[in-house]
Amino acid sequence: MSTTPLSTAPMTTAGIDAVGRRLHDLVAALMPPMRSITGSGVRATLDLVRAALPAQIPFTVHEVPSGTPVLDWTVPREWNVAGARLVGPDGRVVVDVADNPLHLLGYSTPVRARMPLSELRQHLYSMPDRPDWVPYRTSYYNDAWGFCLTDRQLAALPDGEYQVEIDTSLTDGSLTYAEIVLPGTTDEEFLVTTHTCHPAMANDNSSGIAVAAELASALAARERRFTYRLLFIPGTIGSITWLARNPAAVGRIRHGLVLTGLGDRGAPTYKRSRRGEAVVDRAAARALAETGRPHRVVGFSPYGYDERQFCSPGFDLPVGRFGRSQHGEYPEYHTSADNLDFVTPESLADSFAILNRTMEICEADRVWRNTSPYGEPQLGRRGLYRSIGATMNRASIEMGLLWVLNLADGTRTLLDIAERAELPFDAVANAADALAGVGLLTEDGPAVDSPDTAPIAAPATVAPPGTIAAAPEPAVVIR
Amino acid sequence: MSTTPLSTAPMTTAGIDAVGRRLHDLVAALMPPMRSITGSGVRATLDLVRAALPAQIPFTVHEVPSGTPVLDWTVPREWNVAGARLVGPDGRVVVDVADNPLHLLGYSTPVRARMPLSELRQHLYSMPDRPDWVPYRTSYYNDAWGFCLTDRQLAALPDGEYQVEIDTSLTDGSLTYAEIVLPGTTDEEFLVTTHTCHPAMANDNSSGIAVAAELASALAARERRFTYRLLFIPGTIGSITWLARNPAAVGRIRHGLVLTGLGDRGAPTYKRSRRGEAVVDRAAARALAETGRPHRVVGFSPYGYDERQFCSPGFDLPVGRFGRSQHGEYPEYHTSADNLDFVTPESLADSFAILNRTMEICEADRVWRNTSPYGEPQLGRRGLYRSIGATMNRASIEMGLLWVLNLADGTRTLLDIAERAELPFDAVANAADALAGVGLLTEDGPAVDSPDTAPIAAPATVAPPGTIAAAPEPAVVIR
Amino acid sequence: MSTTPLSTAPMTTAGIDAVGRRLHDLVAALMPPMRSITGSGVRATLDLVRAALPAQIPFTVHEVPSGTPVLDWTVPREWNVAGARLVGPDGRVVVDVADNPLHLLGYSTPVRARMPLSELRQHLYSMPDRPDWVPYRTSYYNDAWGFCLTDRQLAALPDGEYQVEIDTSLTDGSLTYAEIVLPGTTDEEFLVTTHTCHPAMANDNSSGIAVAAELASALAARERRFTYRLLFIPGTIGSITWLARNPAAVGRIRHGLVLTGLGDRGAPTYKRSRRGEAVVDRAAARALAETGRPHRVVGFSPYGYDERQFCSPGFDLPVGRFGRSQHGEYPEYHTSADNLDFVTPESLADSFAILNRTMEICEADRVWRNTSPYGEPQLGRRGLYRSIGATMNRASIEMGLLWVLNLADGTRTLLDIAERAELPFDAVANAADALAGVGLLTEDGPAVDSPDTAPIAAPATVAPPGTIAAAPEPAVVIR
Repeated sequence: MSTTPLSTAPMTTAGIDAVGRRLHDLVAALMPPMRSITGSGVRATLDLVRAALPAQIPFTVHEVPSGTPVLDWTVPREWNVAGARLVGPDGRVVVDVADNPLHLLGYSTPVRARMPLSELRQHLYSMPDRPDWVPYRTSYYNDAWGFCLTDRQLAALPDGEYQVEIDTSLTDGSLTYAEIVLPGTTDEEFLVTTHTCHPAMANDNSSGIAVAAELASALAARERRFTYRLLFIPGTIGSITWLARNPAAVGRIRHGLVLTGLGDRGAPTYKRSRRGEAVVDRAAARALAETGRPHRVVGFSPYGYDERQFCSPGFDLPVGRFGRSQHGEYPEYHTSADNLDFVTPESLADSFAILNRTMEICEADRVWRNTSPYGEPQLGRRGLYRSIGATMNRASIEMGLLWVLNLADGTRTLLDIAERAELPFDAVANAADALAGVGLLTEDGPAVDSPDTAPIAAPATVAPPGTIAAAPEPAVVIR
Repeated sequence: MSTTPLSTAPMTTAGIDAVGRRLHDLVAALMPPMRSITGSGVRATLDLVRAALPAQIPFTVHEVPSGTPVLDWTVPREWNVAGARLVGPDGRVVVDVADNPLHLLGYSTPVRARMPLSELRQHLYSMPDRPDWVPYRTSYYNDAWGFCLTDRQLAALPDGEYQVEIDTSLTDGSLTYAEIVLPGTTDEEFLVTTHTCHPAMANDNSSGIAVAAELASALAARERRFTYRLLFIPGTIGSITWLARNPAAVGRIRHGLVLTGLGDRGAPTYKRSRRGEAVVDRAAARALAETGRPHRVVGFSPYGYDERQFCSPGFDLPVGRFGRSQHGEYPEYHTSADNLDFVTPESLADSFAILNRTMEICEADRVWRNTSPYGEPQLGRRGLYRSIGATMNRASIEMGLLWVLNLADGTRTLLDIAERAELPFDAVANAADALAGVGLLTEDGPAVDSPDTAPIAAPATVAPPGTIAAAPEPAVVIR
Repeated sequence: MSTTPLSTAPMTTAGIDAVGRRLHDLVAALMPPMRSITGSGVRATLDLVRAALPAQIPFTVHEVPSGTPVLDWTVPREWNVAGARLVGPDGRVVVDVADNPLHLLGYSTPVRARMPLSELRQHLYSMPDRPDWVPYRTSYYNDAWGFCLTDRQLAALPDGEYQVEIDTSLTDGSLTYAEIVLPGTTDEEFLVTTHTCHPAMANDNSSGIAVAAELASALAARERRFTYRLLFIPGTIGSITWLARNPAAVGRIRHGLVLTGLGDRGAPTYKRSRRGEAVVDRAAARALAETGRPHRVVGFSPYGYDERQFCSPGFDLPVGRFGRSQHGEYPEYHTSADNLDFVTPESLADSFAILNRTMEICEADRVWRNTSPYGEPQLGRRGLYRSIGATMNRASIEMGLLWVLNLADGTRTLLDIAERAELPFDAVANAADALAGVGLLTEDGPAVDSPDTAPIAAPATVAPPGTIAAAPEPAVVIR
């Protein structure tokens, strides 16, 4: 019986600094592409991720045709932007998407028109209370067009005829997402997802894309019990598409994390899965507590990012969300002020370290069974225990041994034991490794969640309904 | 699939005032009859109730013969009072039941005797600490006689021979109670009971009788999912008699409320059923919390009114008690000071409104199942959801929709969802109605309690033992 | 149906004083023998216990041969001490075990040698922070020898050659323990154990031995529902040996208490069993609360005395530990300062009284079933209930009757009912006795624990593995 190493050595300060700088650089590189839920901006983004990864990591880009039914939804038309600008009565360019992707309402239909300011106004979005910021707006499922600009710009617009030049296309194409699968010693999966549809903003969600890429590199270099699957997907429609197309993988997910907003100066924050006490929920809470710094663990709600889909009642997956300040909690959210100054190397590296530790705990957590449960085994003759007297040097090691022997009855995980014993997780995990090494513990299996309510059975199969056979996967393996 | 309207429009201030005045008038009308657990005073009381009800409400008066075995008890002899007075040595009338029913010990045996004050004293009841109030005393199951009077009267009694004139009868007759059954779309029942045995007191329990009558009128005018059964019964022996005679109806009771003491100036108070977390318990607690005013929710105890019988372990029905100040909490309790000044139109109307709201919540509470549980359904194309941007106008509506979709998995009631989501009940109920309207929810059934312990199985049948076949029901349908 | 008397009358102050003096005298008598986990010092100790017991109490001494396999352990060689002393360069005796058994490291091998102080030092144990106390040290399972002395003595030792004279023997012999079994009306058992291996210390554990003997005397004079089994055993190896040899008795244990450290001035302290909410855990907590004086109830941990073995996961017995200050909480622990001044008659008597009350509650606790569960039974005609009016004299008696009738549904113990009703245990127990007396309650059985996790099933049998057939019991019945 081999045991999984708890972790490589803790990161050094220099190592953390290097990670932070590397992440901030990658966030900067990810700012320019004209991202949306589909289109060439997504592909350009995935190319940047691919370029940031070690060559041996398999990076698969999937293209799912427009019109494909996915659960209750349909993959939308592909949106591409050749250019978009608003020209004033005086011939001056008011806003140009070439300057900032945020200037164009996401999924704007193509328009070539002249109109007076009065008619134009209903297509212009600004933030009166933040007169120097450009808001981020989209209209994916209702045909619309519009420009986003600062309120100061809006206020200064002269009356007159404006020229609207939106050179976009909405065509049958495909939805693009990427997937990294790093096999473990088991086919049980740890899912990590991050959304790729928000353009030109650093925290939401260049930070998520960058940290997911860094995690892939770190995980690839490590022994893995779980198979790690990292998804770079457009929000909502991306997770829905992936869920619809991967019923078998869905059934293998044991833990999952949605990554978003990982670089701002706020306290690290974990949002629990719908189950509330899944292993990943408890592991993340422990990892945060171990930092000894301010942090938050918030309850599940059906509002947020892709955890909404993974935690819908039919799937009810043990997937939480990790980030720092949450959507709506900071004024820079969904504006041009979510820029490179808004995210810091320190916060990015801290987020990475906490995620890393969460994964380590999930890797180490499992159910052990004491092979000598009647009375205490004689630890002294096995070289695990002091043989004389009352010194307290090895006290906490011994308490770890005694608690694990007492509670490893095949019903409790190491997290359970650490919580009951009020010991650090590693004290319990190290004790379990030592006891397993002398044959006093045998592994009953990994820690598995039992949801507080069973997921809803599909009518005829455990897989979600339909769409899979109808949509053979046009996967393109990039490397 | 039709959905039950949550409520008629909330009552207007004028409407509430009218209800309060009507209730106070009915309380006043109910004061004079010489009520006890049996006898013509009960029948006179039921006549007053009948007269206060709209003509179309079926009002059934039951007469159960003396000597009928009912559970562990026996229906007692019928007690009637032709007159009762105590005449002093000087020929002056000390007390006369014609002035106040409280002057006569309830169930006094007939007596014609002369005796000195020293012998008489053991038959006289007063309140030394409340020298101007007449106490209320009874002796149903031990033969006894006596007079109740103010302590000031008692202290002033001269020595000498007194004439006791108690013209009562204790004869084989019957126990009288009334029943209103308002059928709903299902035969599952909502039980409302109030005791009819206390004479000449406004709060205990003319108020209960009056509010029950007003509820009958309101319920008769409304769509009903539940079948409502309102009982006007003598305390203890009345509920025991009804339980013994109605095993089939007992099995259909889903919610129940015992009404008592609804008119005093104290805070509205709900006493939980033995189950503690029955739907009616949670609905009443919500209705009280929604008032935003001081209120109490107290735990079950086996002391009190007829909830003692409904919540005995063999029945263990989800029946709570609603009132304001509780027995023993106010000095006027069971005295002549529980008079028309002690109850107010405002308190009576407020009690009525809270009961009404409790019933509305029970009507609306049910178990829904999301028909599209894999991922979120696309609300936008169903006209339920905003299609653009980040305005917060419809935020709470949307949170209701999202929470209901997420938690409506066939295991949770709307009350469960409202509690978990920390949303007002109506936000959740309205969302459920809207989602059901577009086919995204299907009803799994009404909310049903699972008791924390199973009721005790009767030896051979689920019905309580015996007495039913032996006592064919001499029901008299009044209209 | 007979009911167990709740208790003999509460002890009088004079009675308590007498118990305290008797216990302190017995503690004093128990100090001299050269106790260890085996050997003639244990036998001498058991002779003292036997002498303190009334003649009719059966007192069985067991001898288990060295080399007998017991669970994961082996019964060690028997250790006996003919003498042991350390002689200085000047011919003066530094320490002599004849002065204090603590001077010799427990299980010291025989040694006759001369050596310089420098070599001797690694065999000398003292307490630098308590320069006048002799520490208590042992080395049962690693061959070693040594002397314990005050740090002041150690500091004053002159250089030179020392003569080590340790006349001990480590030979095939046996492990000795004693057992008292007091049959009850059922064969369900209440286990009481105390360790007999610590020499020359008053609190740890002459106090435990003395109080166990006093309990045996008290229990022998009483009606007993449970069969009481009292064990006087060496720590760890003694409980392991008993558990290995008594699988049938193990299966009959319903409650158990490990006694240690019962005489110091600290607050009485109960340590819960691994199950945490076993009947004995709740009974002990109640008994402590009833004292109205400071006390502690602490959670289970796998560190401590023989509860470690009884609460190992394979056995998971409902066995807690009772004492006052805990090991390691007081500086006198495991030193010569744990002497006769450290324990008081008052503390010893108080410990005895609390243990007595804990046993009374366990005896009285049981599951009753209301034989008339439909509605309230008519208490008045059974002479249990007031028949007139509103006096409150018998209020708490009546509340006991009503609560027991309401909750005695075959699922709740009297402890459950007392906790739910917030009534004193005796109010509930007395009500149950009265109701049983008139046939309104029937006994469903004694209160039985359901462990929070099932004990680990042995491979082929519910008994712990092996060793029993291999080791026929060489029991010697003393009387």
